[in-house]
Amino acid sequence: MLVLSGVMLATTLAAYFITEHFDLALFSSVLITAASGVLFWRLGKDKDRTIRKREAFVIVSLSWFALWFFCTLPYLFGNVFTNVTDAFFEGISGLTTTGASVMNDIEAVDSGILLWRSITQWLGGMGIIVLTVALLPLLGIGGVELFVAEAPGPTTDKIHPRIKETAKRIWLIYLGLTALLMVILRLEGMTLFDAINHAFTTMATGGFSTKNDSVAGFSPLIQYTITFFMFLAGVNYTIIYFGLNRKFKKVWKSDEFRAYLFFTIGVILFVTVTIFLVKDDITLEKSFRDAAFQVVSVITTTGFASSDFTLWSPMLTCVFFMLLLSGASAGSTSGGIKMIRHLVLLKNIRLELKRLLHPKAIIRIKIDGNIVLPRVLTHIMVFFILYLLIFGIGTLVMVQVLQDFSSPLSTAASAVATAIGNVGPGVGELGPSNNFAAIPPFGKWFLMILMVIGRLEIFTILMLFSPFYWRNN
Amino acid sequence: MLVLSGVMLATTLAAYFITEHFDLALFSSVLITAASGVLFWRLGKDKDRTIRKREAFVIVSLSWFALWFFCTLPYLFGNVFTNVTDAFFEGISGLTTTGASVMNDIEAVDSGILLWRSITQWLGGMGIIVLTVALLPLLGIGGVELFVAEAPGPTTDKIHPRIKETAKRIWLIYLGLTALLMVILRLEGMTLFDAINHAFTTMATGGFSTKNDSVAGFSPLIQYTITFFMFLAGVNYTIIYFGLNRKFKKVWKSDEFRAYLFFTIGVILFVTVTIFLVKDDITLEKSFRDAAFQVVSVITTTGFASSDFTLWSPMLTCVFFMLLLSGASAGSTSGGIKMIRHLVLLKNIRLELKRLLHPKAIIRIKIDGNIVLPRVLTHIMVFFILYLLIFGIGTLVMVQVLQDFSSPLSTAASAVATAIGNVGPGVGELGPSNNFAAIPPFGKWFLMILMVIGRLEIFTILMLFSPFYWRNN
Repeated sequence: MLVLSGVMLATTLAAYFITEHFDLALFSSVLITAASGVLFWRLGKDKDRTIRKREAFVIVSLSWFALWFFCTLPYLFGNVFTNVTDAFFEGISGLTTTGASVMNDIEAVDSGILLWRSITQWLGGMGIIVLTVALLPLLGIGGVELFVAEAPGPTTDKIHPRIKETAKRIWLIYLGLTALLMVILRLEGMTLFDAINHAFTTMATGGFSTKNDSVAGFSPLIQYTITFFMFLAGVNYTIIYFGLNRKFKKVWKSDEFRAYLFFTIGVILFVTVTIFLVKDDITLEKSFRDAAFQVVSVITTTGFASSDFTLWSPMLTCVFFMLLLSGASAGSTSGGIKMIRHLVLLKNIRLELKRLLHPKAIIRIKIDGNIVLPRVLTHIMVFFILYLLIFGIGTLVMVQVLQDFSSPLSTAASAVATAIGNVGPGVGELGPSNNFAAIPPFGKWFLMILMVIGRLEIFTILMLFSPFYWRNN
Repeated sequence: MLVLSGVMLATTLAAYFITEHFDLALFSSVLITAASGVLFWRLGKDKDRTIRKREAFVIVSLSWFALWFFCTLPYLFGNVFTNVTDAFFEGISGLTTTGASVMNDIEAVDSGILLWRSITQWLGGMGIIVLTVALLPLLGIGGVELFVAEAPGPTTDKIHPRIKETAKRIWLIYLGLTALLMVILRLEGMTLFDAINHAFTTMATGGFSTKNDSVAGFSPLIQYTITFFMFLAGVNYTIIYFGLNRKFKKVWKSDEFRAYLFFTIGVILFVTVTIFLVKDDITLEKSFRDAAFQVVSVITTTGFASSDFTLWSPMLTCVFFMLLLSGASAGSTSGGIKMIRHLVLLKNIRLELKRLLHPKAIIRIKIDGNIVLPRVLTHIMVFFILYLLIFGIGTLVMVQVLQDFSSPLSTAASAVATAIGNVGPGVGELGPSNNFAAIPPFGKWFLMILMVIGRLEIFTILMLFSPFYWRNN
């Protein structure tokens, strides 16, 4: 909370310098967040600081809910929304880097609030990097466990102190790339304010924009730039680190990176050709630009839009619907199921046929040349099945909530997929040209919970509801 | 083929006695099928009869395609359809016990042909019992493997000679229950012809009816009777065998049977209450009857309809959509994913949370008191994931095919789910009140292939396209 209040204060000052308007709502939030931080710091000062697995599950989950509350304060104090639900929705949609919005007219909102909105995504992205790269693998959650296995793992149940160093190094890259994108966007003609906001939300794979029509109004050059940086933001930060250190062989040897690259290129080409064939009045360049932007935006779970993908053809709508479940690389800020899991699942399907022919042979999957342990394989399969189970149950609930919408089935299913995958837009009446404001309050709260569950890789939250967790050790 | 021609001849004679009309189309088919049978019998007479795993995969798949061809002959000779595609569609929809029809006016069709149509389902059901109870487990495919593990398994690679005895015993029960249902339906007021047809297609969990409005026009008593027998047809035949031998403790100890029973009851109650609340002019009895009939019909993948479930509420449409993936018990004639797999998957999700807390412990699932081997668990998870993968890819293809339908996304997805699950009706323009006639030819052939893939538990067909299969041993 102390760090958060610091960032909030910086936002207040930055907004003042850019727009020459002192945002009181932001400043009040700074004071409350700082005061709470001091209070909790004093309460916890003399306590035992040893963190074990069980504590870690609670800490990760609770701290997320605490951040949610304080991130929402500026919306509440600024009277941005007519109700509390919408404020919390925008708050968690930012923090989880989802990017689904309930703002009907973004351009009419105070620029200090808009800057804060973009910064919640950037902060959320920062938090996710620590979580997925350093913390969750130690809890046995997430596909990155595969890579961590290479390094010397934790020998005791205690959370490893190496987290800090890994996080620092990666945060530096995150900060550097954001600054670089900011400069490029400014040079390409964006206003300083737009450049700052879009750099924050691009690198966080968040997708909040300062414009009502998202990125559609910016120049083709800017759209290509954002496409490239969205793709980059979906790469595992360990791989980016290798790339920056010119260890290109290591980058190329990464099975997940290659899967991510080729899958993205493949889908872009497919969508480009389809748009070009379906639409009468479109150039090949525009087809390619729109396809690349939307495909990368959805695969990386960013959620920016430069064109409405639901207007192309039913089949392409279906393609984008499925991409909501894709996700980019593990160890990036992207959400969803992620490439490494898809890759392991597909390899395993292939090998299962071999296993059926040779029931006595032990046939294992390799990723980056290393064997995937049976325990990890089971974990990934369970994650996938659980993800789809929550998707299914969530859809049932949302269909009831959205029963008066024009096509409740696909709209509800896409709302759930986009929330749990932290993407942003859905299909139907929740497509890229619309927002989530029309959803009844219960539906909004339900989607908020799904965003948190998805963001914390499901197991973190679910664990707290497991009887095993509460039983004595 | 010789057996098939025998059944065809019996059908020709039966149709003659019931309707006093000698069906020439059927009789021509008898002659061709018998001739082909004799030819192949002579060709294979002196060959080595040892069947190994590899041969079994080909034999199962090819014999299914051969049966398909000969089952379709009566439709072709009888000029039942205006094109060859429709004839083959009705043929495989029968043989796979799917029950999706392309007949626009069923009641106008020759009764000999209708009887044959019902018998294809009954034959298909018979084939499935051998496959899932006796053959596929020896190939390592299907959840029944769990139970087979109790009995002494195959010690060599050769197909076990015990198949014949198991199959005989189960066929006897199948035959007995069909005859019993026939008598009951006749006593309850159906015509002899309708009683015979509905008994055949109920016990096969097939769903072909002789009426345009399926079972909606029959009395409540008949609807309850069919509901009960559909449920029974979804029980594992080993469990029915125990029940007939009054070993009720063994029946009750079956985890799959209890899961099937409680799941069905739970969904029926939920749907009953929802219909009663949503509809203004409906009694509680009618709500319960319609709910029970439709729920059991879809869970058991029969596909009869006594009411159109797509007209109740969007949420119930979504419930029935999901039930398309359910399936009843393994070792019954029902299709879909089946209860035992859902049960194993759910138990495994629960235990995964325990595994995360205790990473060094070996934590395994038990079914009926026996440990599920890791190899079997992996197989079930891969089956599930592969099932959904085919569902996803299939939907993409069908959306393109059905792009001019009113809601292509949900209609296409339901068409694929109903085909691969061998259910029958879908949602949207393929709901219980409609048929599949309006689908373009390519879409029909695509669904036919999906029916076969689903019916043969996916791996059987897929294996033939695997590079491992064709490599030298």
